[in-house]
Amino acid sequence: MSTSQRPLIDLYSDTITLPTAAMRTFMAEAPVGDEQKGEDPSVNELTAMAAELLGKEAAVFLPSGTMCNEIALAVHSRPGDEILADATAHIINYEVGGPAALSGINVRALEGDRGVFTAEQFRAAIRTPSRYAPATTGVVIEQTSNAGGGTVWPLERIEEITAIARERGMWAHMDGARLLNASVASGVDARTYASHFDSVFIDLSKGLGAPVGGLLAGTQEFIDSAWRLKQRWGGAMRQAGVIASAGVYALRHHVDRLADDHANARLLATELAKIEGLEVHPEHVETNIVLFDVSATGLTAAEFGARTIEEHGVRVSVFGPTTVRVVTHLDVTAEQIPTAVKAIAEVTASALAA
Amino acid sequence: MSTSQRPLIDLYSDTITLPTAAMRTFMAEAPVGDEQKGEDPSVNELTAMAAELLGKEAAVFLPSGTMCNEIALAVHSRPGDEILADATAHIINYEVGGPAALSGINVRALEGDRGVFTAEQFRAAIRTPSRYAPATTGVVIEQTSNAGGGTVWPLERIEEITAIARERGMWAHMDGARLLNASVASGVDARTYASHFDSVFIDLSKGLGAPVGGLLAGTQEFIDSAWRLKQRWGGAMRQAGVIASAGVYALRHHVDRLADDHANARLLATELAKIEGLEVHPEHVETNIVLFDVSATGLTAAEFGARTIEEHGVRVSVFGPTTVRVVTHLDVTAEQIPTAVKAIAEVTASALAA
Amino acid sequence: MSTSQRPLIDLYSDTITLPTAAMRTFMAEAPVGDEQKGEDPSVNELTAMAAELLGKEAAVFLPSGTMCNEIALAVHSRPGDEILADATAHIINYEVGGPAALSGINVRALEGDRGVFTAEQFRAAIRTPSRYAPATTGVVIEQTSNAGGGTVWPLERIEEITAIARERGMWAHMDGARLLNASVASGVDARTYASHFDSVFIDLSKGLGAPVGGLLAGTQEFIDSAWRLKQRWGGAMRQAGVIASAGVYALRHHVDRLADDHANARLLATELAKIEGLEVHPEHVETNIVLFDVSATGLTAAEFGARTIEEHGVRVSVFGPTTVRVVTHLDVTAEQIPTAVKAIAEVTASALAA
Amino acid sequence: MSTSQRPLIDLYSDTITLPTAAMRTFMAEAPVGDEQKGEDPSVNELTAMAAELLGKEAAVFLPSGTMCNEIALAVHSRPGDEILADATAHIINYEVGGPAALSGINVRALEGDRGVFTAEQFRAAIRTPSRYAPATTGVVIEQTSNAGGGTVWPLERIEEITAIARERGMWAHMDGARLLNASVASGVDARTYASHFDSVFIDLSKGLGAPVGGLLAGTQEFIDSAWRLKQRWGGAMRQAGVIASAGVYALRHHVDRLADDHANARLLATELAKIEGLEVHPEHVETNIVLFDVSATGLTAAEFGARTIEEHGVRVSVFGPTTVRVVTHLDVTAEQIPTAVKAIAEVTASALAA
Repeated sequence: MSTSQRPLIDLYSDTITLPTAAMRTFMAEAPVGDEQKGEDPSVNELTAMAAELLGKEAAVFLPSGTMCNEIALAVHSRPGDEILADATAHIINYEVGGPAALSGINVRALEGDRGVFTAEQFRAAIRTPSRYAPATTGVVIEQTSNAGGGTVWPLERIEEITAIARERGMWAHMDGARLLNASVASGVDARTYASHFDSVFIDLSKGLGAPVGGLLAGTQEFIDSAWRLKQRWGGAMRQAGVIASAGVYALRHHVDRLADDHANARLLATELAKIEGLEVHPEHVETNIVLFDVSATGLTAAEFGARTIEEHGVRVSVFGPTTVRVVTHLDVTAEQIPTAVKAIAEVTASALAA
Repeated sequence: MSTSQRPLIDLYSDTITLPTAAMRTFMAEAPVGDEQKGEDPSVNELTAMAAELLGKEAAVFLPSGTMCNEIALAVHSRPGDEILADATAHIINYEVGGPAALSGINVRALEGDRGVFTAEQFRAAIRTPSRYAPATTGVVIEQTSNAGGGTVWPLERIEEITAIARERGMWAHMDGARLLNASVASGVDARTYASHFDSVFIDLSKGLGAPVGGLLAGTQEFIDSAWRLKQRWGGAMRQAGVIASAGVYALRHHVDRLADDHANARLLATELAKIEGLEVHPEHVETNIVLFDVSATGLTAAEFGARTIEEHGVRVSVFGPTTVRVVTHLDVTAEQIPTAVKAIAEVTASALAA
Repeated sequence: MSTSQRPLIDLYSDTITLPTAAMRTFMAEAPVGDEQKGEDPSVNELTAMAAELLGKEAAVFLPSGTMCNEIALAVHSRPGDEILADATAHIINYEVGGPAALSGINVRALEGDRGVFTAEQFRAAIRTPSRYAPATTGVVIEQTSNAGGGTVWPLERIEEITAIARERGMWAHMDGARLLNASVASGVDARTYASHFDSVFIDLSKGLGAPVGGLLAGTQEFIDSAWRLKQRWGGAMRQAGVIASAGVYALRHHVDRLADDHANARLLATELAKIEGLEVHPEHVETNIVLFDVSATGLTAAEFGARTIEEHGVRVSVFGPTTVRVVTHLDVTAEQIPTAVKAIAEVTASALAA
Repeated sequence: MSTSQRPLIDLYSDTITLPTAAMRTFMAEAPVGDEQKGEDPSVNELTAMAAELLGKEAAVFLPSGTMCNEIALAVHSRPGDEILADATAHIINYEVGGPAALSGINVRALEGDRGVFTAEQFRAAIRTPSRYAPATTGVVIEQTSNAGGGTVWPLERIEEITAIARERGMWAHMDGARLLNASVASGVDARTYASHFDSVFIDLSKGLGAPVGGLLAGTQEFIDSAWRLKQRWGGAMRQAGVIASAGVYALRHHVDRLADDHANARLLATELAKIEGLEVHPEHVETNIVLFDVSATGLTAAEFGARTIEEHGVRVSVFGPTTVRVVTHLDVTAEQIPTAVKAIAEVTASALAA
C-alpha cells in the first residue's frame, strides 16, 4: 500500500490513531511557552495531571514511550548492572538495544506466560552477589503486556514481585504504555498499580489517541535526574505545549472510552474463533489486543497480512512467523468489526482452498 | 518572574518565540500519519524540503537540535575517538556532556576568536596517529556561533578546514542551529555551506519560530543510521506531522524575515554602544545576537538581568559572570528596540549612580 | 580456611595451579623488554606460538581470559548490538556484566544442553532485521563449556552454527578458555576448531598451569584493533615477558598432560557415582570437570563444600544451590583421587545419617 | 634498530628498565596463590605496603598505571560528567580516549605551566550548575607531570586546589605514576601528598624498575568498587604474586635510589645546556626527566632521535615536533651521562654544520 492511501480498517496498532477534530482544536488554542524554562502552561498542566493520576511526586513529558523507558533505566542503573524483564518485553525487543547501548545494562529475559512471569521465576533469577556475576538491580513490568497479547498483570502478582524486589534492594519500573487499558479492564486504579513502582510511564500516543509523547513519573529527585537525561538526549523541546495539550485532552476525554476498544477486541476475538483455520483464544483477550495463529492456512503471517490489506483494505500486524496481531483503538468502530472479520475469514478460506 | 507572566519584551533567546496564529492554523490542518512507518505526509514534506535546502540526499526530523547534534556524533564516531570544536560550542557547553555519555567521545576545545577558529589551530590540534593517543576523527563547526555572539563562519574558512579534514580522513558536521541566519546575513546559500560537511542540522525552534524540532541531513546511508538511533533514543514519534507542519510553514514564511532580526540586532547594538557603562561591539553583530559586558556597572550579569526584567519587563540572558546576551527574533518588533534600549540604559545609569 | 593454609587437595578450579619449579626457573631466565614497543622477546615468541597453534594471522597476550573475551566483543560490535551465547556462558555469568558495560551490547541467552545449543536454536534466535529490534550480529561459543560441566562442543555443531552465522553476516568468537582440553579430549586440532571463528582465545592460567594471562588470536587487522583496546583498558604491560614466558613453557610442556586431568576426572566421576546420596553422571565427563548434585544429602552445595574443606581439607566449588563442581588439574595427582572420593563419601554419609 | 638489539644507552623512558638479577631471584621465590580469592601472599603483602605508604585504607594491584587511572575515573564518575586536568595529562594524551570510552566522561584541559595549573585556573573552570552544562565533578593531578618535564606539584598548590574541590563537592584523584620521584625530590612524604586525594595510584614499572603493574589506593569502599571493575575489565589475574613480588622488592630497594636518577638528570641537563643549538632549561629539571628543543638544529625531534640511536646507540624519545625527552632510570648509570651528552652534542654539531 502506498503511504498516501489509508487502510479502510486499520488494526495495525493503537499507535496509528489520528488526532480527532476536537483534539486538534484544543491543541490549536493551547497556551504554550518554553518547557525548558518551566514556562509552558500546557506541559505543566499535563505533567501535574500525570503525577496526580499515578500518585507520584512529579512527572516529565517526553517525545515517546521508548524515551520514558530508556531514561528510567538510565536513572536507576549503573553500567554493568543486570535487570529482569519478561522475554516479550518492549525494552528487549522494540527499543533497538537501548538498555545496553544507553545504560550499559543487560536485560535478562524471563519466560513468562503471555508476558507475565511468576514470583518464583523472578526470585530464582536474582543473582547471589559474587565477585564475578553482574548485580541484579532492577525489574521492569510491562502493563499490559503487548507481545503477550494485551495481558493484564494481576495486582497480586505485582505486589509479590515488587515486595521481593524491595527486600533485595532492587528498583522496579513499570512500562505502563497501556497501563490505562489495564486499569479500565481490571477496575484497579492506575495509582494503585503505580504505587508499587519507583517509576512508571504511560504512553499518550497509543490507546489514548494523542499524536506524540509519553509521561514518566516518580519522585521529584527521580524526575530531576530524568530531566538531565531529557536535555542530554535531546528530548527537551521548546513550545512543547502544542503537543502536550493533546495529552491533556486525551487524559480528559479518552480514558473511559478504552472500554469500547476492549469490547471491540473481545467481539473480534469471539468472531475470529469461529473461523476454521485460525487459532484464537478469546479467553486471553483482556484488553484491546488480539493475537491469532495462521499456520493452518499454510500462509506466513506476513503473507496473510499482505492479503488482508491488498484484497480487503484491512491492515493487521505481523507478530511472529505465523502470528498475527490485531489491535482496536479510537479509529476503529464497533461497526467495522464484522467487516474486518469477514475480510480475515475470506483470506483464510481462500488460503485453505488453495 | 512567575511563569504565568510573560515579559513585555523578551530578548532571552530566539528559542522562546510563540507559534503565530497563521502557523497554528496551518498546523491544525496538516495531514498526519505514523512517521515511524513513513506515513506522515507533513513529516515527509518537511524532510524533503530540508534535504533540498541543504543539498543532501535525505533528512530526518528530530525533537530537538541537541538530538540532531548528538545523533550525528554517534553515527560518525566510535567510542574513544576525539573530535575538535570551538571552546564555545553548543556540544561542549549546552548538551549536558552528551558526546562522552552517548558516544564515548572526547571533544577537544579550540580557543577561537568569537567562536571561530583558524585552519592553523585546527591542523595543529589533529593528533599524529600513535599507540597511545586517541584518534582525532571529526570536527564540528557551529554556524552561526551562538556563544561567539552570532558570528558567521566565513565560507573560505569552512573550505580550508573541511579540506584539511578530508585530507586527514576526518568527518565534518555542521551544527547549523542558526545556519539560515548565516545564509541570510552573508548571502551564501545554505546548501553551499552544507556542501562541505558530511552532515548538517538546522533548528526549527530558534529564529524560524516553530515550536519544536530540528532537521538533520546527510547521505541516505547516514540518515538510515540516524533513524536507528532516533528509534533507540526515543526520538521517534508517531503523528509527528502536528509539529513538523510548523516546520514546513516556517521554512516557507520565516526565512527571509530573519533579515529583520538582524537589522533589529544591529540597531540594538548601535544604541547600546552609546550607553556609558556598557561595553558593546556593534561591529561584531553579524546576525541576531548581541553580547555586552556590564562589569563597569559594578553589577554581575545575573544582577543586571534581574533588574531589567523586574523593573522594566525586559528579559535578557546571562552569558558569563558579567556578560549579557540579547537576541532578536520573530516576537521582537523594531518598535520595541528603543524601549529595550531605554530599560537597559536606566538600569546601567542607576547602577553607576549607586 | 585462612588464606595462608592451602587445602590438602584442591579441586576448586584449574585456575588455582601454582607454577612448577621448572616453569619458575624458565620464567626467571626469560629475555624480556617493553611489550608496548614490540621489544619483549618472550611475548613475541608466545604470540607467535599462539597464532601458529590457532591458525590465525596474529595474536595478543592479555592479563586474563576475561579481557580476551571482552576485547573480542568490543572489536566486533557496535553499541546496541545483540549477540547470542549459551545461558551458561562465562561472558554472561562471570564477567560482571562486561558486554553491556564495555561494549553496549546485550547477550541473549540460549538454553542449550550442558552448555551446548543446537543449530536450530541458534537460527531461531537470530532476529529478522527491523526498525525496532536490536541487530543480532555475533555468536560466542565456549569450548569447553565450563558451567555445562566441561562439555566439548562437537566440531560438526560448530560447523553448522558458524556456517549459519556467516550466511547471516554475523561474526563468531570462540571463548576457548579450555580449548586445549577439548582438543586433547576429541583429537581435533585446536586450529581446526579455530578455523571456523573470526577470533579465538585460549587461557594460560587454567589447565595449562601458567600463573597469569590469555592469548587472543585473529586476523592482523583484528589484533591491531585489539591492541588499541589493550592500551585503553590498561592491559598493556611493560616487561610482560616475565609472565608470558610461563605461557611459552606451558604450551611446550603442559598440553599433552591434560589427558591425565581428563583421566583423573573420569575416575573421580566413576567413583563418586558409587556413593549413595550423590547424583553424578560419569557419562557427561568429557574433560577435567565433574558436576554432582547433593540435594539428597539435605545439604546445600555451600554447606557440603564447607564440610569437605573443614573436615577433610578437600576444597570443591559451589556451582548452584545444590550443585558442586570439582576440577582436576596440574596440582591434582591420580593418587589423590581416592582420598578426595573418600572425603566426599564421608561428608555424604554423615549428612544422610543426620 | 631491530627489536633484538638494545640501545647502548636507553634514555627513552623509565618504563624500559629490566628487572635486576636480585629482583628476578626474589620473584622466582615469591609465594603465590589465586589473587581473586585473596590467596596470593605476595599480592596481599604488596597491597598492604601500598596502603601504608599512601596512608589509605586499602589498595589494589593492577596490570598497568593506565588501568589504575581509568578504574579510578570510572568509580568516581557517572556518564556525562566533566572533569578537569592539565592539557599535558596522561589521561588526555596517552590513554587512547579511555575516560570518554570507558566512563562516558569528558576531560576539560587546563593550560598550566609545565603541567601545573593554578588554583585560579581551576576555580574558573568549574561550571556553575545549570540545566544545560555538564557537571564538573572531579579533578586529576599528575605527580610528577611527565609531559610537563617531570615537574613536581608543590604541596601548597595541591592543598589549594583540593580544598576548592572539596568545597565544591568534587572528588580528586592523583595520577601518581611518578609520585615517589616527587617525594624523593621534595622531601614530602608520599602519604602527605596522598592525604589530599580520594584516590591515588603509583606505578611500579617506571622509576621503581618492576616489570609490570601499578597500585591504586583509597578507602575500602573505593577499592571494593575498583575490584568490581578489575574483574569486569579483565585486570584480575590468578597467581599474580609472580609479578607483584617485583613490586614488593622495588618498594623495599628502589625508592631511595631515585635520588640518583634525579642527580643524573640534573647533570645531563646542565651539560646539554652547554651545547650550542639546543634549548634546555636545567632549572626546570626537578626529577628524572629532561626536555630539550632542537629547532635550532634544523632537525625535527624525530630526525634528531633517529640519528642519536643510529649513529651513537643512544635512544631518546620524541615528545613534540621539535621537543626531545630524555629520562634517567635504574638502567642508566652516572658514567653513561657524559657519553650520552657527547652523542647528542655530535648530532647537534653535525646538523648545525649541514
